[in-house]
Amino acid sequence: MDKTILVINPNSLEEMTREIEAAVAPLRISGGPRIECVTLHEGPPGINSQQDGDSIIAPMLKLMRNRERDCAAFVIACYGDPGIDSMREASRRPVFGIAESGILTALTIGQRFGVIALSAKGVSRQLRKIGSFGVTDRLARILPLEMAASDTMDESKTYDRMVACGTALRDVHGANVVIMGCAGMAGYRKPLQDALGIPVVEPTQAAVGMALARVSLNWEGD
Amino acid sequence: MDKTILVINPNSLEEMTREIEAAVAPLRISGGPRIECVTLHEGPPGINSQQDGDSIIAPMLKLMRNRERDCAAFVIACYGDPGIDSMREASRRPVFGIAESGILTALTIGQRFGVIALSAKGVSRQLRKIGSFGVTDRLARILPLEMAASDTMDESKTYDRMVACGTALRDVHGANVVIMGCAGMAGYRKPLQDALGIPVVEPTQAAVGMALARVSLNWEGD
Amino acid sequence: MDKTILVINPNSLEEMTREIEAAVAPLRISGGPRIECVTLHEGPPGINSQQDGDSIIAPMLKLMRNRERDCAAFVIACYGDPGIDSMREASRRPVFGIAESGILTALTIGQRFGVIALSAKGVSRQLRKIGSFGVTDRLARILPLEMAASDTMDESKTYDRMVACGTALRDVHGANVVIMGCAGMAGYRKPLQDALGIPVVEPTQAAVGMALARVSLNWEGD
Amino acid sequence: MDKTILVINPNSLEEMTREIEAAVAPLRISGGPRIECVTLHEGPPGINSQQDGDSIIAPMLKLMRNRERDCAAFVIACYGDPGIDSMREASRRPVFGIAESGILTALTIGQRFGVIALSAKGVSRQLRKIGSFGVTDRLARILPLEMAASDTMDESKTYDRMVACGTALRDVHGANVVIMGCAGMAGYRKPLQDALGIPVVEPTQAAVGMALARVSLNWEGD
Amino acid sequence: MDKTILVINPNSLEEMTREIEAAVAPLRISGGPRIECVTLHEGPPGINSQQDGDSIIAPMLKLMRNRERDCAAFVIACYGDPGIDSMREASRRPVFGIAESGILTALTIGQRFGVIALSAKGVSRQLRKIGSFGVTDRLARILPLEMAASDTMDESKTYDRMVACGTALRDVHGANVVIMGCAGMAGYRKPLQDALGIPVVEPTQAAVGMALARVSLNWEGD
Amino acid sequence: MDKTILVINPNSLEEMTREIEAAVAPLRISGGPRIECVTLHEGPPGINSQQDGDSIIAPMLKLMRNRERDCAAFVIACYGDPGIDSMREASRRPVFGIAESGILTALTIGQRFGVIALSAKGVSRQLRKIGSFGVTDRLARILPLEMAASDTMDESKTYDRMVACGTALRDVHGANVVIMGCAGMAGYRKPLQDALGIPVVEPTQAAVGMALARVSLNWEGD
Repeated sequence: MDKTILVINPNSLEEMTREIEAAVAPLRISGGPRIECVTLHEGPPGINSQQDGDSIIAPMLKLMRNRERDCAAFVIACYGDPGIDSMREASRRPVFGIAESGILTALTIGQRFGVIALSAKGVSRQLRKIGSFGVTDRLARILPLEMAASDTMDESKTYDRMVACGTALRDVHGANVVIMGCAGMAGYRKPLQDALGIPVVEPTQAAVGMALARVSLNWEGD
Repeated sequence: MDKTILVINPNSLEEMTREIEAAVAPLRISGGPRIECVTLHEGPPGINSQQDGDSIIAPMLKLMRNRERDCAAFVIACYGDPGIDSMREASRRPVFGIAESGILTALTIGQRFGVIALSAKGVSRQLRKIGSFGVTDRLARILPLEMAASDTMDESKTYDRMVACGTALRDVHGANVVIMGCAGMAGYRKPLQDALGIPVVEPTQAAVGMALARVSLNWEGD
Repeated sequence: MDKTILVINPNSLEEMTREIEAAVAPLRISGGPRIECVTLHEGPPGINSQQDGDSIIAPMLKLMRNRERDCAAFVIACYGDPGIDSMREASRRPVFGIAESGILTALTIGQRFGVIALSAKGVSRQLRKIGSFGVTDRLARILPLEMAASDTMDESKTYDRMVACGTALRDVHGANVVIMGCAGMAGYRKPLQDALGIPVVEPTQAAVGMALARVSLNWEGD
Repeated sequence: MDKTILVINPNSLEEMTREIEAAVAPLRISGGPRIECVTLHEGPPGINSQQDGDSIIAPMLKLMRNRERDCAAFVIACYGDPGIDSMREASRRPVFGIAESGILTALTIGQRFGVIALSAKGVSRQLRKIGSFGVTDRLARILPLEMAASDTMDESKTYDRMVACGTALRDVHGANVVIMGCAGMAGYRKPLQDALGIPVVEPTQAAVGMALARVSLNWEGD
Repeated sequence: MDKTILVINPNSLEEMTREIEAAVAPLRISGGPRIECVTLHEGPPGINSQQDGDSIIAPMLKLMRNRERDCAAFVIACYGDPGIDSMREASRRPVFGIAESGILTALTIGQRFGVIALSAKGVSRQLRKIGSFGVTDRLARILPLEMAASDTMDESKTYDRMVACGTALRDVHGANVVIMGCAGMAGYRKPLQDALGIPVVEPTQAAVGMALARVSLNWEGD
Repeated sequence: MDKTILVINPNSLEEMTREIEAAVAPLRISGGPRIECVTLHEGPPGINSQQDGDSIIAPMLKLMRNRERDCAAFVIACYGDPGIDSMREASRRPVFGIAESGILTALTIGQRFGVIALSAKGVSRQLRKIGSFGVTDRLARILPLEMAASDTMDESKTYDRMVACGTALRDVHGANVVIMGCAGMAGYRKPLQDALGIPVVEPTQAAVGMALARVSLNWEGD
């Protein structure tokens, strides 16, 4: 099969793209679709605001149009799913956002999901998304790490905060599944799950997993 | 008072800006805020898609930044409220979208609101918005006119379709208030209301009305 | 313009009516509608229960009927909106309640609203209202001050409790906008907003602001 | 047992009180609570509006206070549950409204309930109630008979309309249980159920049934 | 009247059946339906999991079919309502579950209900039920006792935990009515209510009370 | 990779298992998990009721336990997801139901989903499920084919009914994605999609696709 899933890191950090590469490795199957991870060079170094998110829509659409012919699905690897509605409208291919895919995957695992967000500023954006998905009743709470996206690669700063947030989501807010609300945190998924004792969803893996299935099924035809 | 409400028509049709000018005339009060209606020249001739909506965010933000100092509030005069979250994040001033303001105003008038949409394509976008507002339970239905935005200025084409949609919203879907899901339809509000026998909300008027109140209250300080 | 917005304080405390007068002062615009604040002398000294609220419906309707001809809109300046449904049914003019207007205005400012209530007893009444508005998904929590309405004019007793409630709404319950759940608290709005660092909505101002817009638009005709 | 359930017909029609007497007959059990049906003579001849409903709160509270000592529960036999919140606040006894009881009983019978309303005017009032109950997701639709309450005792006018409404609720709106949205329709319950082939809930029976259970359990103590 | 309400304790603990007998004693009314409490001997000693609940459906259906002719209603006396949908489908008689009846009864008493659950494991099961009832908006929180069902008969272990849970539901989570999420706790209802100062619902009593009313009304005919 | 996804057809029709085999063929990828489709011989010839669904839980659990060691995920290939909660509780492996997976997949494709159900009897069961998933706001409507499951293999009987239902879901109820509410309909997916002009979700494919992703990711560890 020569189909390609294009995973777009809409920020310009190559380091995060490499984290995404590592995250999706288990979904590379010899006979399955190619998975290609690209950096949107026009993007800012991190998507830390609605403006950052909106700013990458145009270049991401351009990238998508250039790859529409040779790609079978697109994944927007930024929690917040910037530009997903325009992407879906403009493409004949299925488009996945990691927030949507992460949440829908979490719904198959636990009855109330919590989200570890990068920053307090992003919580309202996430709540609007969850409202538009119509799944607010399943949300326990979104708790922010209060760190910049770029800092999430500094293990010593991040992991302890994630465990603290996850513990509060579980014990105070009644979550029985936790979503990591950021791309590039995949390396922490297993240790965090072990520390919390409840399942942890890595959203880029969730989204590329959904794309893998859809591309294989080829519902959209050729 | 020398405060200004800047009403931005994000499409490039000057004719629509003039319709908006006419719509907001009753809100120009001596002693009250100035109301200035501007055309976003960088915009497309109509906002007929998510891509159109996303495409105007950057120039609208630029316009807003140029006017931040001398304006007291901003109104995005396009049903769908493109760019509203970025605008709110970037501005210290209150920002109003006509979809949000139209719906919230309708909630003070009737228990179930219906919306006359320009096109079927826009219905999903509107449903996502309504979900993110958390008011889906108050929605009767969104019914599309199936006309391009630019055609709405052709009275003979539009009015009959609006009455048909409004009648179906009232009789089939149980709406007791109807929102005109487009800027530039203000001229039809009163005849439509008379034809339907239930209140009709013109969303640009609703949004500028909300802005008038907020600017007068000056909650955001100086 | 000789139109009048009649703001009814349905309790008999003239002191609260004077607080309301002060609150709405910014909405008195030279060319805009007159704003007249009246005390419902038949009312109890405070609306502290559902029975208090129901008891003022008949005299408020009588007052409204006496003023229907010379007023363009009515505002019920009691959080809980007593009698609003009867008022709307009986009048050809738009009628605003400060709970409804305060909440709908808050929805334009933050994604999750908290409410500072006067007393624990009133929380269920407010929850029923919010349920009937269909916006429960946007509610963070209602926290009571546990003070009688009449005590709210004692600054030393009230302000500290309001800051404590607002802080808990923000930090424990995730509110990013706070509504003052009582008329007559307007003087605290700005200091409370400064203390909390998130926007604070004064509901009488919100309601009279909505009325100002609607009267100017004259959707109901003459 | 000498406990009494007081069923209050808040309109002044003795004929309706007699209908209610007949409706609750099956709930008179030799060893169970007395069931006393009374007419609120101060009430209007029919509760056809929010104002009618609000107007009976004061006399109903007075009646309740006179009977608080010798009654174990109160039932407000008017669909719309006028005054229920004041009654509950003012009484140490359980208070039941026939709309609330009818709907909660219907939830034990079918997954989506429809309501046959007396008039179109009452639909918004009912929707607000259902919203405040938090059960909007279970509602199929409310369809009005478009008859005055007093007319519902004219069998030839009413029954055909009820079958038509019930059929539409079942076939068009997906209801699998139907509530008769009025006191005084009990005589039609069984034939309507037979005609529709789905269960029909008579709300006064539902409410008095709930009261029978609660009085027997004596949770409120003595 | 020779009608019988059959209350099925689906676990094999005779001691719990005797607790249920005691709980429903106030609902045995001379002239009213017989109330017969039976132990499902095929059941496990406690229903502590979804598997336990599913395992008793077949024997409970068999029991029901054997008693269909001589019983007028069935009550499943296990919080979680195992098998209720099959029972309702298979029987011409009304079938009540104690979770559903307990929750619907609580909705007539307080605006936000809390539930004291036996174990943390059961919380998700309960949330799914509450979601399927469509009343999630009325839920404050479910807090687990963290005790096995069989331990609930050890008063010294249980009561203190119940008071602690109930207090947290009231003070932290805003509940104003509490449901005991287990059959066999009826003896604690009154003391718990007194300790908490808010109403407490015993669900088996609630369900048998609903059955008492329905059997008396005989809506299902003979 | 030697991991196996076990797809369980819980009815005894081998013909349906073969249909399922055909449906999941595109998800058999060299290098990916094995997909094994088995018939639950203890099952009835069709799952046409809640009782049918509950009846297969015990044998399905037994089958699962026998295969727990050598399988990496389980799929319950019956719309209605019978036994899913017990399966999830009893297994360390991820378990997927085709209703849940079909609906969650549809949420990535359209804003309002419709479902073509096999029979009217099953609609309430589906509504309860959708309520427990917390996604009722995204549901357009469930419309029944009114055919027995075994008849769905008769192409002449089925296809025309499916197109009629799908058309009504799209045009009357506002669905923009349709789910086939039954296993064994996969052959009709593409023609139905072409006929309706909106995407159609085949739920077994959706569920096995989700399982493919999850097994590849191995979140549950070994």
